[in-house]
Amino acid sequence: VTIELASHQYGKAETHLVHVRRDGDVHHVTDLVVAVRLRGDFDAAYLEGDNAGVLPTDSQKNAVFAFARGGVGEIEEFALRLGRHFVATVGSVREARVIISRQPWERVGDSAFSRSAAERRVTTVTCRAESVQVVSGVTGLSLLRSTGSSFKGFLTDPYTTLPEADDRILATAVDARWRFDGEDVDWASAHAAARAALPEAFAARPSLALQQTLYEMAGAVLEAVPAIAEVRLSMPNLHHFLVDLSPFGLDNPDEVYYAPDRPYGLIEGAVRRTGVSDVEWAW
Amino acid sequence: VTIELASHQYGKAETHLVHVRRDGDVHHVTDLVVAVRLRGDFDAAYLEGDNAGVLPTDSQKNAVFAFARGGVGEIEEFALRLGRHFVATVGSVREARVIISRQPWERVGDSAFSRSAAERRVTTVTCRAESVQVVSGVTGLSLLRSTGSSFKGFLTDPYTTLPEADDRILATAVDARWRFDGEDVDWASAHAAARAALPEAFAARPSLALQQTLYEMAGAVLEAVPAIAEVRLSMPNLHHFLVDLSPFGLDNPDEVYYAPDRPYGLIEGAVRRTGVSDVEWAW
Amino acid sequence: VTIELASHQYGKAETHLVHVRRDGDVHHVTDLVVAVRLRGDFDAAYLEGDNAGVLPTDSQKNAVFAFARGGVGEIEEFALRLGRHFVATVGSVREARVIISRQPWERVGDSAFSRSAAERRVTTVTCRAESVQVVSGVTGLSLLRSTGSSFKGFLTDPYTTLPEADDRILATAVDARWRFDGEDVDWASAHAAARAALPEAFAARPSLALQQTLYEMAGAVLEAVPAIAEVRLSMPNLHHFLVDLSPFGLDNPDEVYYAPDRPYGLIEGAVRRTGVSDVEWAW
Amino acid sequence: VTIELASHQYGKAETHLVHVRRDGDVHHVTDLVVAVRLRGDFDAAYLEGDNAGVLPTDSQKNAVFAFARGGVGEIEEFALRLGRHFVATVGSVREARVIISRQPWERVGDSAFSRSAAERRVTTVTCRAESVQVVSGVTGLSLLRSTGSSFKGFLTDPYTTLPEADDRILATAVDARWRFDGEDVDWASAHAAARAALPEAFAARPSLALQQTLYEMAGAVLEAVPAIAEVRLSMPNLHHFLVDLSPFGLDNPDEVYYAPDRPYGLIEGAVRRTGVSDVEWAW
Repeated sequence: VTIELASHQYGKAETHLVHVRRDGDVHHVTDLVVAVRLRGDFDAAYLEGDNAGVLPTDSQKNAVFAFARGGVGEIEEFALRLGRHFVATVGSVREARVIISRQPWERVGDSAFSRSAAERRVTTVTCRAESVQVVSGVTGLSLLRSTGSSFKGFLTDPYTTLPEADDRILATAVDARWRFDGEDVDWASAHAAARAALPEAFAARPSLALQQTLYEMAGAVLEAVPAIAEVRLSMPNLHHFLVDLSPFGLDNPDEVYYAPDRPYGLIEGAVRRTGVSDVEWAW
Repeated sequence: VTIELASHQYGKAETHLVHVRRDGDVHHVTDLVVAVRLRGDFDAAYLEGDNAGVLPTDSQKNAVFAFARGGVGEIEEFALRLGRHFVATVGSVREARVIISRQPWERVGDSAFSRSAAERRVTTVTCRAESVQVVSGVTGLSLLRSTGSSFKGFLTDPYTTLPEADDRILATAVDARWRFDGEDVDWASAHAAARAALPEAFAARPSLALQQTLYEMAGAVLEAVPAIAEVRLSMPNLHHFLVDLSPFGLDNPDEVYYAPDRPYGLIEGAVRRTGVSDVEWAW
Repeated sequence: VTIELASHQYGKAETHLVHVRRDGDVHHVTDLVVAVRLRGDFDAAYLEGDNAGVLPTDSQKNAVFAFARGGVGEIEEFALRLGRHFVATVGSVREARVIISRQPWERVGDSAFSRSAAERRVTTVTCRAESVQVVSGVTGLSLLRSTGSSFKGFLTDPYTTLPEADDRILATAVDARWRFDGEDVDWASAHAAARAALPEAFAARPSLALQQTLYEMAGAVLEAVPAIAEVRLSMPNLHHFLVDLSPFGLDNPDEVYYAPDRPYGLIEGAVRRTGVSDVEWAW
Repeated sequence: VTIELASHQYGKAETHLVHVRRDGDVHHVTDLVVAVRLRGDFDAAYLEGDNAGVLPTDSQKNAVFAFARGGVGEIEEFALRLGRHFVATVGSVREARVIISRQPWERVGDSAFSRSAAERRVTTVTCRAESVQVVSGVTGLSLLRSTGSSFKGFLTDPYTTLPEADDRILATAVDARWRFDGEDVDWASAHAAARAALPEAFAARPSLALQQTLYEMAGAVLEAVPAIAEVRLSMPNLHHFLVDLSPFGLDNPDEVYYAPDRPYGLIEGAVRRTGVSDVEWAW
């Protein structure tokens, strides 16, 4: 058989870094999981086991920790510093991607913190010699509205038994990513504004379809943050079904629901500013 | 071989119930996972497959949904209603336990809600004909303090290499349970007070050992809520180790840490009001 | 408030140890997750932060690794060596428990191994100065039978809607523990015999209730291994429901099922050799 | 803000289907998790909440169950039938993808089955009006070799502290996908041959880099199954580090290791038959 190596990449995944900035008695904690992924001239390692161009993933991990000395800053900044470092200093690297997920710690004292959130702020920064791309977002944000959502007028086929719904529970867990146009951005306030737009737009208007609500949420993010060029949302439709209580002599006026874990609908869409070009390698 | 049936129990686990109370335009969502566990005269089912005394777990699930019609209330109230129902109406049942975990939804609109917390409020209510026991608590509450924790003067053996620590990061994820003395309790405010005492006591005083901090946290719960008789805490010691940055020409003045997932210390303890008797069947 | 410390314990959880025995070219891999849990005179640590009696959990982890040098043997042997060590050499320790879970690696070459199983062999060994207890078992063993299981003649109440089932799918995931009477046991062959008895007894006879099948499975383990005194099984009833295909003009003669994740029944029972006394501290 | 809808897709995820074929007393169980994902003319749903072109995900789920009546066959066949159905019968659908993961049940009797494997056989079938693509594979296959793996001669930078390794443990969990060239394939035997090639090639030759071993494994799959055009492997490098036992007066001649969960290296590569063109929409 004649075979050839096509695309390839490697790196260090899931380096867990905790940084403490000690501003007198007031401390600041930054808790990150960092992945590095390199693309470049690594063919010889695959083809012959020749590692001359391969920077060990252990060295990548070391760089993550070393770069944290002196301060991490916003996750986008930290990822940009790391990504550019690999492109600039490792000859075999053509593209470096740094993916960061931040665990939120809330202050409960000068040097004490509490964490109960499953939601994570994330970023994926991809660096090439000539340009960089920053895609940020959130994962693990659950939303539910108990009225104002219908699903009607849909296409039916021989396998359709679903009745039209005038007023159903709409619940989802948003996985959101947004691509910034450039890097001259105030990352913290951009994140805050984009994040805030999601639940607001989720609840703002009647929903005729989760697709429509997704589109409005993406639009709200674009409206809120001019520096964002494109938004991609992945949103499960987490079904809530009314329980039939009639065998027990009870009615159920939109009150008691069961919520199966699966199957679930999965609705996905990308929305961008008109005229903005597609930058697929950023995602 | 001559064998005999010893203890046994059965029930329906993980019934996921979502309740919506519609107070005009303002809605209230209660999101529960409910388990029922019955003990009693079920020997014949085990020994001969005779189900005459066995209430199907499907009926238990139905009761969970039916009892939610009209309102759930605090999770302790709902568990008490359900548990007493099984003891009172099912002849074979000697003891009914109802375990509830509540997922928190935060209001973001009149009928819109958001959930990002991994923390859960929980209760275990055990009902017998003559008495009931209520054990409540929280799970999934992570806490971290970045100073004021030492670990010194410990016992050493030939396998000890750990140096003494003057000032380390102390991090944990609290699993807390408290037993109420009786049921004449304002469950919501008791929960709020007990829950609030945990991070407060975690951060209040210097920690000489996680054991000591655990004891102070349990004591603070007892202090905050007179209706609580005993507190049991299970707290992992989630290690944070300083990274050695010297190979890279950098110092690391208590700033950059790595946090391995495992192994971890696990510290557990029960603290009770003096004179209160042990009620092991409540837990 | 006057409070007092009741029960307490601490130790190192989830030490992941991989041991390689190199028998010439033929290698043997043992892959364990080990927990140590100590009980004893540790009150001063809780009450005053006095660690003089506290062996660091780090030292416990070190002992786990050091004791593996020269060979691990069966997990029960390794746990016994470790547990006795703590009781014998650490003055403050009154009881040492060692919990081991073994990940299975199958040989695919002299020094190459494959692992695809989720099932784990486990042991919980509890050592006191005067006696030891060994409880072993398996977790993660799923079983399904597609005929020969009915559920009829059960108790009904106003919440019962379940029809009787003449022939249903019976599926479960067995969590099994067995207590050995003494330690003069060939651990490997005892494990093999007890483990083999589970699926065999699960399928052997018609099932009138999962309770009955559980009892027969426990009995089969006791029959297979004379050294076992008591068996405790925890078995979910993983429901499989026939899909109603009639809206699509199709019948469904016990062929197409959906299997919701939850809720599920949970059936538990302990079965022991007649005359054997209860040893609750072993579990 | 002027915005526009870019790519979008929707469907039903994680439909859990269990099929029993009753061949007299001998039964056959097929246990699948099925996802459907449709692309096509659904813009109106996103833009205006107009669902006229939207087949409900509930109908998609119903089709999965209905199509199982009469037999499922190999997962590739089932996915092809379903995918083609959606493209052929739903006017708005331009592309239908069906993703199936199969849980293995091993026979322990005529109608009794056991499952202990975490490994899954998977397929992703993408159907368009004019052509289909079949990508199959396995996930959750862990492999370890205890000798014959080195890592030397790598590129170093100021963050490199890793020493060269002459003989290290090499461990991974293979996530493998292979794209078939056409659909005139004996799916079962193709799967068996491709699957078997993975551990064999993993262990066959000395490894100078996990990259090299990955390339050889992909090549072995291409060699074993002529119908496969391209193989993509994603393989973590699950590190095993020798424990330093010298503080305890012990040496450690490549015997006792600890295996941290993270971070880990992640090595990925695609290998294809020379001359075969890239079909990115298949993956």
